[in-house]
Amino acid sequence: MATDKSGEIAINMAETKASAKGTAPLLNYSKAVAAVEPPNRGAKKGLAVGDFVLRLCALGAALGATVAMGTADQLLPFFTQFLQFEAQYDDFDTFRFFVMALGIVSCYLLLSLPLSIICIIRPLATTPRLSLVIFDSMMAALTIAAGSASASMVYLAHNGNDDVNWLPFCQQFGDFCQSASGAVIGSLLAAALLLIIIILSAFALKRN
Amino acid sequence: MATDKSGEIAINMAETKASAKGTAPLLNYSKAVAAVEPPNRGAKKGLAVGDFVLRLCALGAALGATVAMGTADQLLPFFTQFLQFEAQYDDFDTFRFFVMALGIVSCYLLLSLPLSIICIIRPLATTPRLSLVIFDSMMAALTIAAGSASASMVYLAHNGNDDVNWLPFCQQFGDFCQSASGAVIGSLLAAALLLIIIILSAFALKRN
Repeated sequence: MATDKSGEIAINMAETKASAKGTAPLLNYSKAVAAVEPPNRGAKKGLAVGDFVLRLCALGAALGATVAMGTADQLLPFFTQFLQFEAQYDDFDTFRFFVMALGIVSCYLLLSLPLSIICIIRPLATTPRLSLVIFDSMMAALTIAAGSASASMVYLAHNGNDDVNWLPFCQQFGDFCQSASGAVIGSLLAAALLLIIIILSAFALKRN
Repeated sequence: MATDKSGEIAINMAETKASAKGTAPLLNYSKAVAAVEPPNRGAKKGLAVGDFVLRLCALGAALGATVAMGTADQLLPFFTQFLQFEAQYDDFDTFRFFVMALGIVSCYLLLSLPLSIICIIRPLATTPRLSLVIFDSMMAALTIAAGSASASMVYLAHNGNDDVNWLPFCQQFGDFCQSASGAVIGSLLAAALLLIIIILSAFALKRN
């Protein structure tokens, strides 16, 4: 094969079948890869480290949002014989969905950390990266859905809607509304981080 | 370079610098690519065609949702001297956001069709694919946000919330609620299609 013809570059790629090599195929593989594409590998590794750090931040945001919403609870200091004025997150189905969804996303982000570490160790492996992209997209969708549904609820709690006579209640339950708003902001932060992670993954998957 | 040693495969890659080739670099590039990776190229082309078809479906769903929500309007057949009972999408800030967001998404999907066609013609080019992934993620986020915020609103319109004395109004404004529900379903369909498009793009970007 003509390798010295100008305008052509020859690349050697080591076959990685375990059956052909006998022992330690992983080691051989990574050595071969390092020999073939060193500059590319460095960039991919940087992307993988960024992915890990962003994933940690998203985990923090999602956990914070879950806790903030789950503990949002306010008891007013006055009551009648029959009524006690209390606002809790589970008075609202949307907020209950929020706590469940963000709980699931937090668990997923925690469980995805090992896979993210695998991507740092083997930056050119596509299978772990692809599985991360698929699940990340789903979890980003869940986070955005929960966050924006709750955002519309919080908006309604603050402003009400005169046309259908839904009165705002944030003047009475100020602390509750503040917790809920904080949780919504946390979830939208987590969603933004997940979107950035997906875009980073697309760059990491890209051929050179 | 030893090319006949067992366990090694040599691949020739044509350099594509326009300066080195002189004229018609695009043609040379695609010829060289076709010579190097024919089976891979076919699969990528299939993915690109799938992307285009799904994009058309998502455009249909998004447009349908926009129109369904934008035309949701019901006038009740009775009125008093001072009041006329009418429900319109713009009585609700969430629904107004929905119409704007889905309108933007529809425009984006329409404008992204040419880029998707470029991806069919040149299935191995990564730049158009990457730009599509980035904007697709943002638009998917917007669609899910609008869809789920409106979903929580429609849920409230159907069921109300006893704890804060928000009464449901779908018994009176049944047609309006039905239009709004249909629009929400359309938007969530568009969001699901966009997520599938993003995952397909990740497969298309993947090395070999």
